[in-house]
Amino acid sequence: MRILVLGGDGYLGWPTAMYFSNRGHEVMIADSLAKRYWEQESEAMPLWPVPPMHQRVRHWRAVTGKTILDRVVDIATNDRFLYHILGDFKPEAIIHYAEQPSAPFSMISRRHAVETQQNNVIGTLNLLFAMKSQCPDAHLIKLGSMGEYGTPNIDIEEGYIEITHNGRKDVLPFPKQPGSFYHLSKVHDSHNMMFACRVWGLRATDLNQGVVYGVETEETRLNPELLRTSFHYDAVFGTALNRFCVQAALGTPLTVYGKGGQTRGFLNIQDTIQCVDLTVKNPPKVGECRVFNQFTEVFTIQGLADRVKAAGAHLGLNVGIQHLPNPRAEQEQHYYNPKLTKLPELGLKPRLLNDVLIEEMLGSVIRAKGQVDEQVLYPTVKWRLQ
Amino acid sequence: MRILVLGGDGYLGWPTAMYFSNRGHEVMIADSLAKRYWEQESEAMPLWPVPPMHQRVRHWRAVTGKTILDRVVDIATNDRFLYHILGDFKPEAIIHYAEQPSAPFSMISRRHAVETQQNNVIGTLNLLFAMKSQCPDAHLIKLGSMGEYGTPNIDIEEGYIEITHNGRKDVLPFPKQPGSFYHLSKVHDSHNMMFACRVWGLRATDLNQGVVYGVETEETRLNPELLRTSFHYDAVFGTALNRFCVQAALGTPLTVYGKGGQTRGFLNIQDTIQCVDLTVKNPPKVGECRVFNQFTEVFTIQGLADRVKAAGAHLGLNVGIQHLPNPRAEQEQHYYNPKLTKLPELGLKPRLLNDVLIEEMLGSVIRAKGQVDEQVLYPTVKWRLQ
Repeated sequence: MRILVLGGDGYLGWPTAMYFSNRGHEVMIADSLAKRYWEQESEAMPLWPVPPMHQRVRHWRAVTGKTILDRVVDIATNDRFLYHILGDFKPEAIIHYAEQPSAPFSMISRRHAVETQQNNVIGTLNLLFAMKSQCPDAHLIKLGSMGEYGTPNIDIEEGYIEITHNGRKDVLPFPKQPGSFYHLSKVHDSHNMMFACRVWGLRATDLNQGVVYGVETEETRLNPELLRTSFHYDAVFGTALNRFCVQAALGTPLTVYGKGGQTRGFLNIQDTIQCVDLTVKNPPKVGECRVFNQFTEVFTIQGLADRVKAAGAHLGLNVGIQHLPNPRAEQEQHYYNPKLTKLPELGLKPRLLNDVLIEEMLGSVIRAKGQVDEQVLYPTVKWRLQ
Repeated sequence: MRILVLGGDGYLGWPTAMYFSNRGHEVMIADSLAKRYWEQESEAMPLWPVPPMHQRVRHWRAVTGKTILDRVVDIATNDRFLYHILGDFKPEAIIHYAEQPSAPFSMISRRHAVETQQNNVIGTLNLLFAMKSQCPDAHLIKLGSMGEYGTPNIDIEEGYIEITHNGRKDVLPFPKQPGSFYHLSKVHDSHNMMFACRVWGLRATDLNQGVVYGVETEETRLNPELLRTSFHYDAVFGTALNRFCVQAALGTPLTVYGKGGQTRGFLNIQDTIQCVDLTVKNPPKVGECRVFNQFTEVFTIQGLADRVKAAGAHLGLNVGIQHLPNPRAEQEQHYYNPKLTKLPELGLKPRLLNDVLIEEMLGSVIRAKGQVDEQVLYPTVKWRLQ
């Protein structure tokens, strides 16, 4: 199958591209390289240096003998090249990670909010038009976010909900209450995609993904030095588990924002790839815009910190937990029951978070702790007015 | 009160500005003048020529002795000037019409869809940041659209709906199923505004307006030649009632798209101004993002055509009705029951559409029929793939 991975230089894009290439698919990656700039601008570099995109594909060929095609394109501004790529490569599946991926980044300033929505919403809009023109039968697999839903006081269904109201009934898009300009951009994308599928008969799957952890996949293990993906532990691009591991390794307290009762869906990076693979193998009907919730288990932030503390103790580390004033505007104690039925129905076999994995992550980070930039561990971006 | 009208050179913006100026408020209008360009590009000029913005404010002063300040600014691209305007004028109310207003325009091509969402979404995003920085206590009155809701099979509430699901309950944003990239831009705006109010404590009212008809207000009547607002009858910027009046005047059949069972909310331009005035006089609480449905009555397109036909007959015109293949993707027979309680509670007294008004419109159009460009009456923009 011809598979185009947009955002193929990113944390998830690169391992996804290797996975499909390794299984004999024709894979092309395309990336604006904007994230490389945002990392430097935000002073938030990955813990281990990540080779540039053009070197990654060379390393991949050297290690496996397989070819991943690569293109540099900003799909939000260079629609002509995007049309050309789709017309030339004729992808059957397009896996779309090409978005600014950080909630705190989108909250830094007006410029960052606008850049996030412009990059994400206009990029996806250009993609929908390019698909309509060049490959209307392709299957768009778009990464959304569980954060689009916010934390409603009812069960979170997968994209749509049947509502009975004043004696009448309809199935409607699930109401969204996103918590940052980044999450808002994903909500805007979802609405644009539903419309494009309905009106043009495109086929799409919107994967509302939880928080991903881990950096190892079957393919990165072929040569961890050359094929690795990025590990972010900073307060802008990093996620809680990564940050906690780094803090534990350094012997500084794990920083929990507010009470820590914030509850979220999580999944292992290998399960991201498993979910994307299941989605590619089971395309939707013409005109269908499916939504899958994509996570494997639910934790509170406090619960996650407790697990890292315990794993650290097992390695002889004395790990403390510090509650910081919450820089975000979010509920710290809330009902949270997101449904997870569609990917399991397709065969998802979750790899749950276990102490061995946390201890492995801690072990790797301890060996690299000389490279840690402590300054970036603490939140500087505040949601509310000062 | 200091009132800033964004989009103050537009169909609704200019009459709104005159209304508040006439009642002693300090009024500033700001406009990018983009609509003037879009009209020429789309070959869709108003039936009667509309003086440029800088002349309108001079005419207003000549006729009434009152001053309306005017600024040329593109709020989607010139955030610095927007911040400066808010910091300098310190508006207490900001009435925001500064959006590309046409569904067909947004469906012409990729470029038109992107331009619509970029102009509308980024413009409103810039405005929210500028308000946060320069006038966080101001009341934002934003024009949304009844078209944001689409045509669900349940009653349409005003912005929010209480949902009971699996034994639990929450009040959530009403699910949206907009029918064009233009309507989608309004949905994106609504989500961005709700977030800005929640997180920054801004105050906003989102007016989900129906289709507006009419060009006369108390202020345009002071000097119809100098103070008029635009009358669009073309298939891009015009709305159905205007087009029907022009077709009746020319003796060509009224063009109904599809079956004509499409049902929409409508209101007189004077009621738009009445609703905005009621909203300005009754601001929301700090942090509140209110949504009002704004229309006065509901018609099917067929029903509207029938009324114009009858009014035409009364004037001795022989009016035919022609059903065209529907260029849009929309339900042509559907349930439609939008709620209208909040503006009436504030005191809205509707001026319903009556035969006298239709006959007056027909009379004006007949006198101007030499200026009609027949070519622009027929739809050229198609929603679906060819």
